[in-house]
Amino acid sequence: MPIGFVQIPVGIVGPLLLDDYEYSVPMATTEGCLVASTNRGCKAIYASGGATSALLKDGMTRAPVVRFGSAKRAAELKFFMENPDNFDTLAVVFNRSSRFARLQGVHCSIAGKNLFMRFCCGTGDAMGMNMVSKGVQNVLEFLQNDFPDMDVIGISGNFCSDKKPAAVNWIEGRGKSVVCEAIIKEEVVKKVLKTSVSSLVELNVLKNLAGSAVAGSLGGFNAHASNIVSAIFIATGQDPAQNVESSHCITMMEPLNDGKDLHISVTMPSIEVGTVGGGTQLASQSACLNLLGVKGANRESPGSNSRLLATIIAGAVLAGELSLMSAIAAGQLVKSHMKYNRSSKDVSKVGS
Amino acid sequence: MPIGFVQIPVGIVGPLLLDDYEYSVPMATTEGCLVASTNRGCKAIYASGGATSALLKDGMTRAPVVRFGSAKRAAELKFFMENPDNFDTLAVVFNRSSRFARLQGVHCSIAGKNLFMRFCCGTGDAMGMNMVSKGVQNVLEFLQNDFPDMDVIGISGNFCSDKKPAAVNWIEGRGKSVVCEAIIKEEVVKKVLKTSVSSLVELNVLKNLAGSAVAGSLGGFNAHASNIVSAIFIATGQDPAQNVESSHCITMMEPLNDGKDLHISVTMPSIEVGTVGGGTQLASQSACLNLLGVKGANRESPGSNSRLLATIIAGAVLAGELSLMSAIAAGQLVKSHMKYNRSSKDVSKVGS
Amino acid sequence: MPIGFVQIPVGIVGPLLLDDYEYSVPMATTEGCLVASTNRGCKAIYASGGATSALLKDGMTRAPVVRFGSAKRAAELKFFMENPDNFDTLAVVFNRSSRFARLQGVHCSIAGKNLFMRFCCGTGDAMGMNMVSKGVQNVLEFLQNDFPDMDVIGISGNFCSDKKPAAVNWIEGRGKSVVCEAIIKEEVVKKVLKTSVSSLVELNVLKNLAGSAVAGSLGGFNAHASNIVSAIFIATGQDPAQNVESSHCITMMEPLNDGKDLHISVTMPSIEVGTVGGGTQLASQSACLNLLGVKGANRESPGSNSRLLATIIAGAVLAGELSLMSAIAAGQLVKSHMKYNRSSKDVSKVGS
Amino acid sequence: MPIGFVQIPVGIVGPLLLDDYEYSVPMATTEGCLVASTNRGCKAIYASGGATSALLKDGMTRAPVVRFGSAKRAAELKFFMENPDNFDTLAVVFNRSSRFARLQGVHCSIAGKNLFMRFCCGTGDAMGMNMVSKGVQNVLEFLQNDFPDMDVIGISGNFCSDKKPAAVNWIEGRGKSVVCEAIIKEEVVKKVLKTSVSSLVELNVLKNLAGSAVAGSLGGFNAHASNIVSAIFIATGQDPAQNVESSHCITMMEPLNDGKDLHISVTMPSIEVGTVGGGTQLASQSACLNLLGVKGANRESPGSNSRLLATIIAGAVLAGELSLMSAIAAGQLVKSHMKYNRSSKDVSKVGS
Repeated sequence: MPIGFVQIPVGIVGPLLLDDYEYSVPMATTEGCLVASTNRGCKAIYASGGATSALLKDGMTRAPVVRFGSAKRAAELKFFMENPDNFDTLAVVFNRSSRFARLQGVHCSIAGKNLFMRFCCGTGDAMGMNMVSKGVQNVLEFLQNDFPDMDVIGISGNFCSDKKPAAVNWIEGRGKSVVCEAIIKEEVVKKVLKTSVSSLVELNVLKNLAGSAVAGSLGGFNAHASNIVSAIFIATGQDPAQNVESSHCITMMEPLNDGKDLHISVTMPSIEVGTVGGGTQLASQSACLNLLGVKGANRESPGSNSRLLATIIAGAVLAGELSLMSAIAAGQLVKSHMKYNRSSKDVSKVGS
Repeated sequence: MPIGFVQIPVGIVGPLLLDDYEYSVPMATTEGCLVASTNRGCKAIYASGGATSALLKDGMTRAPVVRFGSAKRAAELKFFMENPDNFDTLAVVFNRSSRFARLQGVHCSIAGKNLFMRFCCGTGDAMGMNMVSKGVQNVLEFLQNDFPDMDVIGISGNFCSDKKPAAVNWIEGRGKSVVCEAIIKEEVVKKVLKTSVSSLVELNVLKNLAGSAVAGSLGGFNAHASNIVSAIFIATGQDPAQNVESSHCITMMEPLNDGKDLHISVTMPSIEVGTVGGGTQLASQSACLNLLGVKGANRESPGSNSRLLATIIAGAVLAGELSLMSAIAAGQLVKSHMKYNRSSKDVSKVGS
Repeated sequence: MPIGFVQIPVGIVGPLLLDDYEYSVPMATTEGCLVASTNRGCKAIYASGGATSALLKDGMTRAPVVRFGSAKRAAELKFFMENPDNFDTLAVVFNRSSRFARLQGVHCSIAGKNLFMRFCCGTGDAMGMNMVSKGVQNVLEFLQNDFPDMDVIGISGNFCSDKKPAAVNWIEGRGKSVVCEAIIKEEVVKKVLKTSVSSLVELNVLKNLAGSAVAGSLGGFNAHASNIVSAIFIATGQDPAQNVESSHCITMMEPLNDGKDLHISVTMPSIEVGTVGGGTQLASQSACLNLLGVKGANRESPGSNSRLLATIIAGAVLAGELSLMSAIAAGQLVKSHMKYNRSSKDVSKVGS
Repeated sequence: MPIGFVQIPVGIVGPLLLDDYEYSVPMATTEGCLVASTNRGCKAIYASGGATSALLKDGMTRAPVVRFGSAKRAAELKFFMENPDNFDTLAVVFNRSSRFARLQGVHCSIAGKNLFMRFCCGTGDAMGMNMVSKGVQNVLEFLQNDFPDMDVIGISGNFCSDKKPAAVNWIEGRGKSVVCEAIIKEEVVKKVLKTSVSSLVELNVLKNLAGSAVAGSLGGFNAHASNIVSAIFIATGQDPAQNVESSHCITMMEPLNDGKDLHISVTMPSIEVGTVGGGTQLASQSACLNLLGVKGANRESPGSNSRLLATIIAGAVLAGELSLMSAIAAGQLVKSHMKYNRSSKDVSKVGS
């Protein structure tokens, strides 16, 4: 079917010291300075003792839209779906879609007589959209018995929400929810990042918090998470269209130890990744997964490969945020001296 | 610098009949059925006489954040920047950054004593971020004379807004703003798309409008624009991280001729593309641009190559929306007969 | 303390036929035509057999923000709070705040080392903010034992979210979540509302769905819910500052019976009302509550008075939407005849 | 028509020292401690030398939705409306609606073949919705000549956007856009507000910026602007339903002079007020406007009364933010000593 291939250059950043392991992280990008910049962030993290992550949630979602003759009936199905007594039955039906599928819950939202049911489920090491869609179909078939008047309008009703910026993902998570943090020492900020803790903290408040607030952003309280997410997604065979919500990120920078050190964190509620299926099977992408030690399904602990991949992505985003924010903050100092030199050019090159 | 390459399979869809020309559109994706599905959309458009597009706006943006000692002073700079009398001077300073740069306007937003100035400018056939950043630096330097108390906090203050979902892009546009439309005849809806006009119209209201509203979406009132945008971005050497806002899209479907025919449109306010610089210079990406006839800078009419690329992307999104929505709508009919067969499996495969 | 009073005129609309009961609904407003317009909506509903409502949820929320030395620790508290095993203990501690308080759940969200814990609880017939705040304080005190390193930054961290437009309320609800619907017969649409079913359906898609989408609205997919909510809030002693989120509403209009009749619904996820405490105790406000039969605490079924009040508000919003949308749709017809007469003036008077 | 009145208690706060004038600000509210709290904020501002404001914009908006047979045609009208050459003609037609109406511009947004035209105009001392609606009708009639195929679907298409939370208001403003600021001295923070500069700055970042970001807020980056806006709106005869967007506010707190003093600001882009028409004519409301010296139309400088009212509201919001944030920050200190006493009760009473 394909008539050929495009080639995307791959660079390696690292070692990314994360949760006491060292990772060499592949990034596929045509922007060379993105690799260099992220690498500088890794260096700063390494010199400060490494980054730490926590996985907050792991569940893929799909939300069909069904319609009834009345809102009253739609509400009845909502109550049925959310009744704890029915959960086990629904889970059995749903989980038939795959031996890895594990229904976690159903969040129902109503618009008149239309009901949106957001199924959330564990999907092992797969990104999981197909698995969830099949599970949803199982349940819809099952429900037709008790709710014969239910009209299935679409297997996806956009309350999922896939490949669109949507508050439901930002607030409730989709795929993997991860927080990653590091404490960057004062001397590292100065020597490696060429800026100061106070400049970074200030820039973060004005750009990543206030600036994004003024812009009416949804889940975009960061400098350039999307750059790193896209590059790793492409390198490792993920679906690059899903970087829309996988890049949701709030970057926080707070002073520690009387302002001498920097606490930086990225919180990313909806990283959608898998280590089996789709583009992960292609040769070079597979090699990149292998490089990270997360190739294929984890047999001992299903899902732990894809979860690890998500935390590595968050770790790389942490490095990327640290470096670009430093470049911008350093540009500021330069500018205050009225000369725009290389360092500020670097800023414009990396983009954000 | 790069240690190697990943290869992304490229498929061709088309002919996409758009504004009376036929295009073969390259899509780089690991999801084979995405190509097949978009192709079906192209076929339906072709059989109906083609699609039409209109370019609504063309301007790249960058918004630094500067700080003063008081909001009063920040307001003074805002008034200065927005005063028509000063525009010519600012434009001269700004446009020095490139012979293609054309300042169009500056939109200033205040948060206390901090001022965000969103510069918008024409950038020829380049995507234009570097050009705009340099122009912004020129202006910031220039302003230091009259506003010596201006503290440049960051060359980017996130009011730009780059690679983040933000209402400012959705409402004011960024890069190319395009609308693309087609009238799909009743018989084509039936024979090619295997569904009905009324099913499509209804699904569009419940999924793309109401569903996205319920999900708290920002600019995601579509089925899967991101799929098509990503695939063409990667094939043609665009920055895939920018698909976050380049995928903003509202898909409308309305009945025509007493409900016999279908009017479908996609409105995309912030498609960020270029045909020079960055990844467009790589061999295979360059070949893909060539295939579309938009490679490099257009010498006769600077910017027309990149604008044409944007309209082709919108045209392909139109095809993609048409096909996936039809698959979902057809799935519905199947489901009402209580059997989930191939057509509904296709739905889950294409994703969204 | 008060130096005097302002007087707000009160009009009565109705009978509002809702769930087989008739209500005379007081509206305090300086806009006379708002009362007349809403009354017309009530008339149309009455003539069509009445409206029906369903209460989807009932819980007030408060979300303190606490900070730890690390995101890891913040995550530990999140896991603790969301662990079902701990719920009973937390509920006992929380519910000491009032004999009506019933903890329903805690939704925790992280931003780096800061944790936002959104407590949701039933509050009887009170709006419940004080009750919830006290319950939260109880729990925070309790948690200090096991999490002595928890730093309470604020009893409210804006993840609540009170008196601000926020997706968390729109998606998860706050106060009462209500859907209300009616089927308006063709002849009623013509004779009472002076328009047609198809005009209303079309206007609703283009204005309340597409228009609000284009405007980047959050939960404002309606014509003028805020008008009705404000007027009843003021009449019945509610907190008018809370109409910000209490007015969140998606209005749906769908054709029934081959387009002859109209199904209209309003879905409102966050109506925040009480029938005891605050302004409900003032003489005239108390009389208005009495008029609706929801004054004070319901002894037999705590909370049912405030829930009924919420459904009546939704019913009145339904009437208001029906009438204003009809006026706008009728204005269209008039305009197509090139004369802007009384009916279109009415439109501008009612506002939206 | 009205069957009676509800009475809302009015308290006075002040003197609010703003732009070198002292104001006694009436607040109509059933929440007594709101008045006391705001008064404390006024006291702190007074003791620090007063607050300063700047009016950034003044223009009311209305956006009809019209439909064409094609997006191409809709785009043609968009280009026509936005063409500077046509502005004078459109302005003459529009401004016939009132001797105070002054068309400022038209922002057009497209969704397929539907066009939303957001007219913005100066309205003297009136809030201006009626004036703008009439002007819009004038223009629509006028346009029918050159665009006879234009189908006016609704005089309001929700891109206005009135009484709904919408990014378009947040980003482009509606009514009056105001920023108000003050520098609060260290000793005042300690003695009057019972907290510290660093606590306030920190709380503001975590609650008003990060917390609202996490909640998916739109324009709600404040503690309780809605409380103050509602209370003054009701006291002065404004439309309380418009507090939805009039309460949009970002509150910034930044340390000055090495962290000894506090710079606080509120930026409010869409305060919708008038001093003539509507509820301003009622006796007690009129008296409240008189108390502020902004009653009726300003003959010498049309519009300056309503603009002054907007700045006073912003000044009062500044006071309200200062006081509630201090109460919350102080509550934190108390809590760290494990005793929840009066001051923290005050917090829960004021709400937000």
